[in-house]
Amino acid sequence: MAKGITKRSQDYSRWYQDIVLRAELADYAPVKGCMVIRPYGYAIWEKMQATLDARFKETGHVNAYFPLLIPEEFLRKEAEHVEGFSPECAVVTHAGGSKLEEPYVIRPTSETIIWSMYRKWIQSYRDLPLLINQWCNVMRWELRTRLFLRTTEFLWQEGHTAHATEKEAEAETRQMLEVYREFAEGTMAMPVIRGVKTEREKFAGALRTYTIEAMMQDRKALQAGTSHNLGQNFAKAFDVDFLDADGERKLVWASSWGVSTRLIGALIMAHSDDNGLVLPPRLAPIECVIVPIYRSDEEKSSVLEKANQVWKALSAKYSVKLDDRDQCKPGFKFSEWELKGVPVRIELGPRDVASGQVVLVRRDNGEKQSCALDSVVESVERALEEVQQGLYHRRWISGRATPAKLTVTMSSRNSSGTTAGSP
Amino acid sequence: MAKGITKRSQDYSRWYQDIVLRAELADYAPVKGCMVIRPYGYAIWEKMQATLDARFKETGHVNAYFPLLIPEEFLRKEAEHVEGFSPECAVVTHAGGSKLEEPYVIRPTSETIIWSMYRKWIQSYRDLPLLINQWCNVMRWELRTRLFLRTTEFLWQEGHTAHATEKEAEAETRQMLEVYREFAEGTMAMPVIRGVKTEREKFAGALRTYTIEAMMQDRKALQAGTSHNLGQNFAKAFDVDFLDADGERKLVWASSWGVSTRLIGALIMAHSDDNGLVLPPRLAPIECVIVPIYRSDEEKSSVLEKANQVWKALSAKYSVKLDDRDQCKPGFKFSEWELKGVPVRIELGPRDVASGQVVLVRRDNGEKQSCALDSVVESVERALEEVQQGLYHRRWISGRATPAKLTVTMSSRNSSGTTAGSP
Repeated sequence: MAKGITKRSQDYSRWYQDIVLRAELADYAPVKGCMVIRPYGYAIWEKMQATLDARFKETGHVNAYFPLLIPEEFLRKEAEHVEGFSPECAVVTHAGGSKLEEPYVIRPTSETIIWSMYRKWIQSYRDLPLLINQWCNVMRWELRTRLFLRTTEFLWQEGHTAHATEKEAEAETRQMLEVYREFAEGTMAMPVIRGVKTEREKFAGALRTYTIEAMMQDRKALQAGTSHNLGQNFAKAFDVDFLDADGERKLVWASSWGVSTRLIGALIMAHSDDNGLVLPPRLAPIECVIVPIYRSDEEKSSVLEKANQVWKALSAKYSVKLDDRDQCKPGFKFSEWELKGVPVRIELGPRDVASGQVVLVRRDNGEKQSCALDSVVESVERALEEVQQGLYHRRWISGRATPAKLTVTMSSRNSSGTTAGSP
Repeated sequence: MAKGITKRSQDYSRWYQDIVLRAELADYAPVKGCMVIRPYGYAIWEKMQATLDARFKETGHVNAYFPLLIPEEFLRKEAEHVEGFSPECAVVTHAGGSKLEEPYVIRPTSETIIWSMYRKWIQSYRDLPLLINQWCNVMRWELRTRLFLRTTEFLWQEGHTAHATEKEAEAETRQMLEVYREFAEGTMAMPVIRGVKTEREKFAGALRTYTIEAMMQDRKALQAGTSHNLGQNFAKAFDVDFLDADGERKLVWASSWGVSTRLIGALIMAHSDDNGLVLPPRLAPIECVIVPIYRSDEEKSSVLEKANQVWKALSAKYSVKLDDRDQCKPGFKFSEWELKGVPVRIELGPRDVASGQVVLVRRDNGEKQSCALDSVVESVERALEEVQQGLYHRRWISGRATPAKLTVTMSSRNSSGTTAGSP
């Protein structure tokens, strides 16, 4: 197969990069350590965002937007925070044609700018809890970068909540970790283990950092999301107190939590194989592709007519692509859509038309089955569900085989993303 | 009315600012010229995004993400572009603890970085048209800023398309202006006039800039969206050619088009009044609010029971808020939800419960009407549609009164946003 994908057994890291580039998920940008997220990769991110955003809203959160730039002095207000993040910051020193009196940093995370606003917005216990999330770009100057997994700029969401009591802040921190776990397992089909980061690994400025980590095919754990109990550290640094129902002024308690485009890297590494990307149906931009097979013009017209009928029936419910390009052979198309990770392929040739059936092929295990044209919608529905469950099950079995190694990796530094903690 | 809103007749500009702050749409940030978009304002932006994004996808576009930072030399590749934008750029000179060899600018718009990638992605006529959109933040260092209308950082979408022929590029440019017009009129209830910018006002690097402009209540036109035919300027600057079907290498043709969070400013100025924000139902985060009215505990329990029933019936279809706060009087609540621009208010007291009806109040004109409890969903549906149409009609009538002035403003510089053109 001349897809240009290195085998996993040969060079795991090269295999990963080949898939990202060849499946057109992302490309290297002409900016140090940055990537371009191409439309096919971005469509996966949009599906991730939609699912997570709905869960955030169901759990009472609202979205907002805070500035990209943070006055440098803000970072210095929380001792651990500045130590963790300032070595990684990009700094704006000039703007509008002249030198700035005080430089700004591009947000590596937004606790400081957000808590400077919370000071203004929180007066009484009636203003709490304040449950805000932000979808945005952040920047951390990294020396060694890898597409999706560690890039200088990345997209993420960051939740920042304020509470009247320590107990509520802790409950929120754990609740959001649970939201991440459900998403990883239910949507990404990726089993994860929950844990607490060590003192050295925790978020710079947190009391405690909770994490979900998933085991990749190279038997390394990858940090997939973190949720931090920030205690009163940022309330102290930014002087945020409130008048409680008992008439006393008290400091506010806080949490923050985030997942990023790194999840796309995790998704690729969790499921893909030597033929390319493998996507769980719940995150696949194209859930099903139809490839018509014909030789003569006569065959072509009857096959395409049926293929269009199938496309129409499926389109009402699924994102379906009918690949009717004339210049490519079916084998080329099979291989291309395998590379792109489309969960279910439908093959439809003259003999299928004659016998009133189609062939369904699962991307995850290559299984083929015939099914009646009349019930193609039900068959695709079942196949997609089987792929979703099958991927989860396979990762789960494979994860159980090496629990000891995973435990070790969870408390080692190399697996856990950036120096300063999340994402 | 102690809402703290200046009257339009007294000070139009102050009135605008009072509404933004008091309705909690945005707040001043501790970063020069920047704002924080608060949850209520951001919810309007999310509705705008959802409607526009669906239209972009229907017209064949896909989303992607390109880097925030642009190598300074990229800007210099197109002569008009650098002249227009570089005086407005924020510059990153240091990162990761040391001085950069070459500085980066924070994107004021993304033509240059995107066309540097298009060079890599476009080889043959089969790669065209390339129809990409990006939702992101951009930055233009402005001296005089106003919340939403002109801020140093703003959120927007920027479409960047590549075509094989001049004709297609022009058709795309006009199509997207038409998408903006439909959105402004159909969703924002804001009539607009289409026009072409003068040589001096056009986007820096464009052949031609088309614009939609809306007339505000102070009889000034506001630029609400622009669509640029870029000709072959960026293809020349970034050396982007393709092998056409006829075997010849040709330069690519381009368009770009954008709308930004400035639209929220336009929305506020188009419809609001001295009592606060007025929102068209299609963009209102809360479409209907229910205010229960009672004095005794006995009244309270029967009124709240009915109010909950109404809430439940409406919630299936609309975003509805039941304001059951005990500490506020009904009059206070009326005034608060007027300030927030909720299109329809339902009042429900003991006499209403007894007679099986509720009172509906329209935010746009204050009209009250009784309607049967049994048909409350239909009544709210009708009222929302009437508000949507009523707002459009009122703006249209008011716009017709002064066509001459509008024409003048359309070709003057003051109304048209930033020095360098879009948004």
